[in-house]
Amino acid sequence: MVFGILGGDLRYKFLYEMLKKENYNVFSYRNKHIDKDVSFENLDDFLNKIDVLITPIPFTKDNKTVFNIDIETIEIDTLINKIIDFKINSFFGGLLPKELIEKLEENNIKTLDFLNDNSIAILNAIPTAEGAIQTAMEQSFKTIFNSNCLVLGYGRCGKILANMLKGIGANVDVSYRKDEDCSYIKAYGLNPINLYKVKNSIEKYDFIFNTIPFEILNKDLLENVNKDVIIIDLASAPGGVDYNYAREININAIYCPSLPGRVAPYSASQILKDKILQIIN
Amino acid sequence: MVFGILGGDLRYKFLYEMLKKENYNVFSYRNKHIDKDVSFENLDDFLNKIDVLITPIPFTKDNKTVFNIDIETIEIDTLINKIIDFKINSFFGGLLPKELIEKLEENNIKTLDFLNDNSIAILNAIPTAEGAIQTAMEQSFKTIFNSNCLVLGYGRCGKILANMLKGIGANVDVSYRKDEDCSYIKAYGLNPINLYKVKNSIEKYDFIFNTIPFEILNKDLLENVNKDVIIIDLASAPGGVDYNYAREININAIYCPSLPGRVAPYSASQILKDKILQIIN
Amino acid sequence: MVFGILGGDLRYKFLYEMLKKENYNVFSYRNKHIDKDVSFENLDDFLNKIDVLITPIPFTKDNKTVFNIDIETIEIDTLINKIIDFKINSFFGGLLPKELIEKLEENNIKTLDFLNDNSIAILNAIPTAEGAIQTAMEQSFKTIFNSNCLVLGYGRCGKILANMLKGIGANVDVSYRKDEDCSYIKAYGLNPINLYKVKNSIEKYDFIFNTIPFEILNKDLLENVNKDVIIIDLASAPGGVDYNYAREININAIYCPSLPGRVAPYSASQILKDKILQIIN
Amino acid sequence: MVFGILGGDLRYKFLYEMLKKENYNVFSYRNKHIDKDVSFENLDDFLNKIDVLITPIPFTKDNKTVFNIDIETIEIDTLINKIIDFKINSFFGGLLPKELIEKLEENNIKTLDFLNDNSIAILNAIPTAEGAIQTAMEQSFKTIFNSNCLVLGYGRCGKILANMLKGIGANVDVSYRKDEDCSYIKAYGLNPINLYKVKNSIEKYDFIFNTIPFEILNKDLLENVNKDVIIIDLASAPGGVDYNYAREININAIYCPSLPGRVAPYSASQILKDKILQIIN
Repeated sequence: MVFGILGGDLRYKFLYEMLKKENYNVFSYRNKHIDKDVSFENLDDFLNKIDVLITPIPFTKDNKTVFNIDIETIEIDTLINKIIDFKINSFFGGLLPKELIEKLEENNIKTLDFLNDNSIAILNAIPTAEGAIQTAMEQSFKTIFNSNCLVLGYGRCGKILANMLKGIGANVDVSYRKDEDCSYIKAYGLNPINLYKVKNSIEKYDFIFNTIPFEILNKDLLENVNKDVIIIDLASAPGGVDYNYAREININAIYCPSLPGRVAPYSASQILKDKILQIIN
Repeated sequence: MVFGILGGDLRYKFLYEMLKKENYNVFSYRNKHIDKDVSFENLDDFLNKIDVLITPIPFTKDNKTVFNIDIETIEIDTLINKIIDFKINSFFGGLLPKELIEKLEENNIKTLDFLNDNSIAILNAIPTAEGAIQTAMEQSFKTIFNSNCLVLGYGRCGKILANMLKGIGANVDVSYRKDEDCSYIKAYGLNPINLYKVKNSIEKYDFIFNTIPFEILNKDLLENVNKDVIIIDLASAPGGVDYNYAREININAIYCPSLPGRVAPYSASQILKDKILQIIN
Repeated sequence: MVFGILGGDLRYKFLYEMLKKENYNVFSYRNKHIDKDVSFENLDDFLNKIDVLITPIPFTKDNKTVFNIDIETIEIDTLINKIIDFKINSFFGGLLPKELIEKLEENNIKTLDFLNDNSIAILNAIPTAEGAIQTAMEQSFKTIFNSNCLVLGYGRCGKILANMLKGIGANVDVSYRKDEDCSYIKAYGLNPINLYKVKNSIEKYDFIFNTIPFEILNKDLLENVNKDVIIIDLASAPGGVDYNYAREININAIYCPSLPGRVAPYSASQILKDKILQIIN
Repeated sequence: MVFGILGGDLRYKFLYEMLKKENYNVFSYRNKHIDKDVSFENLDDFLNKIDVLITPIPFTKDNKTVFNIDIETIEIDTLINKIIDFKINSFFGGLLPKELIEKLEENNIKTLDFLNDNSIAILNAIPTAEGAIQTAMEQSFKTIFNSNCLVLGYGRCGKILANMLKGIGANVDVSYRKDEDCSYIKAYGLNPINLYKVKNSIEKYDFIFNTIPFEILNKDLLENVNKDVIIIDLASAPGGVDYNYAREININAIYCPSLPGRVAPYSASQILKDKILQIIN
């Protein structure tokens, strides 16, 4: 089983090194962070050598060419045809187009979309939570310890973040909508707050962490927060804060997308590596 | 809004006192633990006074009469008719027969089955976990602190128990079948073990807590456990251990059903009280 | 290096097995829990075989004979003379008389009093804390989780117990007299209470754990506790509660001495074994 | 009781605001961060108004003039004489010269050196620990969660930091020299490492936090660390790392003095405020 890394960001450099360290055969092509120990003349040479192809996250931004390939431009269609020709047996990448997945599966190529796998997303909540905490520490004159924190949302990210904040000694309130979540929040030693009543307590927080992907921190809530609050927004684009209004009334709200790759690319790579090996073996 | 407690066990004594303490009107009828401050001549007198009826857990054991009524025998059919006549507006109990629920809802009576409510079941995992830990402490010559623990199953009870064991300082392995659970187990600082490979590590545990409701601890696994292990079985009847074989080879396996009511009836009542008030208000 | 266990309680059975398991040569004499694999005709035979002598905890109760020797009576003076004659090189036991220690040291015999060693006492606080928690769970209708706990005293035992209670999810207040302790209590995420003002909050506790070795829970405080409180007294004899008054006003106060040997003799033995090996090696 | 803040850094702005918020009378003089609501013509005017004088941390750097006074230069001798003349009754500052303390106490002025108070130093370990964690997060490609951490030293700072790292999910080893510390480290769920044997495991750490105030991380140890390690040095000047050698062999070692004032001036002020009020009242 030979692994091939095609393009990608810094995470793939760590991925490359980790696979090597575990004594796998790995080659890379057109990743600007990896010092090549083998130079391939062209894509064909590379694909000819490998069984498992690992492509960038995201795979494409224009739906025509593969994203984040150093120097060269690679058309998606060309790549797919070559993959089939060269009998690649497994394919990894992020945000894969639907037609690509269909074509790969038609050809019995094992396929995994890193950004569409729940078990990866849960583990990514760990570097996300740490990145959120790091940002909060950098922005505030206060310690997290003994501060009043609100975590909006109790999905993957809210769960892990709330638990970690408690671990550093914060007083953690977590919003809920479902009774089941309210029970779990209590049982994990956190303090549940009904999302629809969050306005009642919003003034007391030193830090607000949002994971809810719609504009929950609207004018009405922003008007009631503590003026020194730090808002860390972890929701996917466009985030969960009325940023214009926050700026207007001088509230410090920071949009923090894609934290794992930015704050902990090594740990983010480890998550990918574990998943790749689990699927291959 | 006047509450009426009909029969029931020790938990209902605490429930009665808690409601009183919060200044609600509460009456009881035929509960052997409650010192009556008002004596009703008969069931009609009692039902006439109240709006909310709280019946035993379980509601019935023979499908004909209400369970755990002191002195008197009350037919289910008789009770239902009276409830409708006396315009009771809310009805609580445990393991309610399907036809009963239908009849109550037909008559626009708010109905909750305590044992069929997920938010209650999650909170009940707290006294269950403590009862499991208490039993483990009582049975073993070892401390939980620094012991090797296995939690089989990562549902409501497995989650809360594993977290609590970690809180006391145990080394906690948790079995999983789904990748998502594996990720959550890691993210909560516990050690995931593939359920199908649990045999490989089964020998190292000082304590095994089972929450899986089928015979997971079969002959094959029991033959491989540490001879001093304490097995605490929290799964619903008939439990998850081959008890005959465990006895034969002298393994200490303890079946622990219904822990909340037994080890912490006060806390169990508090959970019921909170739910009742949430539904009423 | 050959170990010899003389008399003692159940802990020494575990100690015997642990040393065997680590491939040390161990013999025992007159311990009622150990199935002998070698029978010695008399004390001389035993002492002749060994280098390290491990004697009971406590070593003596009457200052004349060795405590807890099965069948036989052994005079302290006789034992000492034999120890010197048989060139025993290390001696362990609990609550050793001062003259004994002097005599042993005069003869260059390495000596350790298990009950006068701070590093053992700190580790013993772990099974003590668990025993306290187990007793609290057994005595109360409430869960420790989310209960209000007071720990009186912040020495070895108070520190470990408070931390463990927090780990199970209790709200933990800890009394202090020194400002330094107040700071540490805060820094460990617990709530400091000035010992001289404890009366102000004493009414709110579900559990009170005492580690202060004088009558801190006197009439004045007992009159103000919650009537359902569980008091667990871990202080050395005669404890820290006015027990007569507690009984009179029907407060549940339990004196819990020597918990490690009672609730977790295996773990208690492990602590002794680690120390013995550390000193021998 | 009127408070006067003389000079000082950003922390004294927060201190000023906190005292105001708790309805105390506070005036400031020559602090560049505080917007004055009252303007004093000169030092005499200011001292005339106040009872409690709070001076900079450190109080002086040249032993002649008071440090960190905006615009004006104030001689220490002049200040002392005025303090006595104006009957100031309490005096606070950091690193106070011995003769100053003597003179103040001769005149029955309550005096506290913020940097010579153990209860403050313990609480300052909290922002220090957070600052260390923040720096570690910023410097590393790895998460703290699940990383291997070594804390060198188990004093105030080592204790709190180790506990906090564990709270975020790190695997934490702590060095010890005394057996008592070894026991406490274990009892708090951390892993003790004999300081004299730390070389044996030094290679495995992702993060090393030093709190020992001598050159513990010398050439010999630095040669054996993981090349990607992040070293955070919290020891007082000149720190505990051979920085020249670290630079030479390309090891990332960061000297982090005075973290509380830098990363969490608000929380640092709160500690001072609590102490001031405790002493005054």
